[in-house]
Amino acid sequence: MRPRLALVPGEPAGVGPELCVRALHQNREADLVVFGDRATLARAAAAIGMPPPEFVDAGDARATAPGRTRIVDIPAAVAAEFGHPDPRNAVAVIAALERAAAACIAGELDGLVTGPVHKAAINAGGIAYTGTTGLLAGQAGCEVVMMLANDIVRVALATTHLPLREVADAITPDALERTLRILHAALRSDFGIAAPVIAVLGLNPHAGEAGHLGREEIDVIEPLLERLRGEGMALHGPLPADTAFLPARLEGFDAVLAMYHDQGLPVLKYSGFERAVNLTLGLPYPRVAVDHGTALDLAGKGTADPSSLLAAIDTCTRLARPRAQARTQGSSGR
Amino acid sequence: MRPRLALVPGEPAGVGPELCVRALHQNREADLVVFGDRATLARAAAAIGMPPPEFVDAGDARATAPGRTRIVDIPAAVAAEFGHPDPRNAVAVIAALERAAAACIAGELDGLVTGPVHKAAINAGGIAYTGTTGLLAGQAGCEVVMMLANDIVRVALATTHLPLREVADAITPDALERTLRILHAALRSDFGIAAPVIAVLGLNPHAGEAGHLGREEIDVIEPLLERLRGEGMALHGPLPADTAFLPARLEGFDAVLAMYHDQGLPVLKYSGFERAVNLTLGLPYPRVAVDHGTALDLAGKGTADPSSLLAAIDTCTRLARPRAQARTQGSSGR
Repeated sequence: MRPRLALVPGEPAGVGPELCVRALHQNREADLVVFGDRATLARAAAAIGMPPPEFVDAGDARATAPGRTRIVDIPAAVAAEFGHPDPRNAVAVIAALERAAAACIAGELDGLVTGPVHKAAINAGGIAYTGTTGLLAGQAGCEVVMMLANDIVRVALATTHLPLREVADAITPDALERTLRILHAALRSDFGIAAPVIAVLGLNPHAGEAGHLGREEIDVIEPLLERLRGEGMALHGPLPADTAFLPARLEGFDAVLAMYHDQGLPVLKYSGFERAVNLTLGLPYPRVAVDHGTALDLAGKGTADPSSLLAAIDTCTRLARPRAQARTQGSSGR
Repeated sequence: MRPRLALVPGEPAGVGPELCVRALHQNREADLVVFGDRATLARAAAAIGMPPPEFVDAGDARATAPGRTRIVDIPAAVAAEFGHPDPRNAVAVIAALERAAAACIAGELDGLVTGPVHKAAINAGGIAYTGTTGLLAGQAGCEVVMMLANDIVRVALATTHLPLREVADAITPDALERTLRILHAALRSDFGIAAPVIAVLGLNPHAGEAGHLGREEIDVIEPLLERLRGEGMALHGPLPADTAFLPARLEGFDAVLAMYHDQGLPVLKYSGFERAVNLTLGLPYPRVAVDHGTALDLAGKGTADPSSLLAAIDTCTRLARPRAQARTQGSSGR
């Protein structure tokens, strides 16, 4: 069963459109429906010297194929020059994300793959926006967990884009429990791991060293892990962050839960940036994003590396298969 | 010129003594003088099935060779069982460190290599001790910077063993300036890099993202870097931690200054734990330590990996050469 995935190129002036063009010319194991500006994709194809994909209507019954793709055309307000985001396109960029997500929530599509957007341009366009993850969570009305993954390691984050001085207070028993439950459930349902093994990092260096370097491990993390272990979850930790990522140890974990952004992501990016993807766990559909930005300095030049977008499509395809199966069997979803 | 290095095995019940035995049987490019308990080294050799080194007096004029080593015998109070530190040995463990360091300060030896000690056993033995780095800094009366290094990357730390919630307030302009000056001077004098290029990480995720995720970059780090650049230092940053360690970027940096422990060390350990060493910059002599603990579960079994100790000896040898040169030319040292 080929999943049907929404593909959103993101910021028209960034590398998203040209990376989508490259992906659409390849034979993937999913049927892709683009939500975005057809004209931008055509210009991106021309800029990098590739033929534009043949666009067919989203309702077209013909199978998609390399070079032919379904599209829900959401025209940009202006034809932005590559490398120079135009705030007037903010509304169309956000509309593409919301319509693609709506199709996933409605069960018409099985998953969502997103390219990079430009936060400052969206805000300059008059839309309050702090990130696509939060936007999708709000639309679906659920709490989510951000996970970054490559071929080496999956890293989920207990806190994401917080100033460092606010991190310690944000690690509450309730928040951490919600995060662990979402992560555990997603590893089971989305990744098909029957009994996931999760490494939970400590908040402090050396995981607090028995209280000498901070008490959050003793007061917050350990009691919660102990309680969830009582429910049968396989949770290691709280582990010192510096040694938890040793290659030999990583092999024993299905995911690592880092307490904050810069504790978990440097190793992830060092160990395989090109194939890294950004997943949103907890939504009613799988969502996978590229793990890079708009790369404005590269846009339109044809040198941007499509590895992360291709990895995002492949990852989303795997995660969406059960949902695709359920859809074709007339079930209501995952 | 062969440098003369002090070698301190550390905790008698840990893997330090057996790793030293292995190192002493190899042909290194330095003359080693052991500061420790001769009987413990003999027992460690027997436990791992190796002949004990031939010990000669520290004043012996004969050259050392593989299997023959100078020793300043500092007897342990009790013959501790491998794997079980005895607090009664705390005084001897600390005395060995202090006497070795004193010989380096006096210019009799050119550098110090230390094995792992057991913090809890030392404190249980009635000695207030928070780490060897601090002890050596206090003895020499200077400020120091901790740096971890392997074949891939050198990571210096602006703060070390602090609870995470205290990190942001510890990043003051004065403290950061002292750290950068010590790091810059050490890269020049110890590592022989005429114009070191240093990557300075931000404190917050995305290096604060122009103030949206914290203001320490704008208020503290950037003004300081700008001022020091005016003196000619090559300083990149403040850089987002997650992308600063991308392999292609690392090639352009002689060292990375991380703002705190778990921001800098996971990549260091992931990328080459076995050959990682721990350096103390700012002392009047080079000091290099193993980057692992006492590994009590392995002690006496002969399976502990000597790679980090061998790397520490080799690194200290390189760093000590200018000092050895100066000593033999009758100069007063660095």
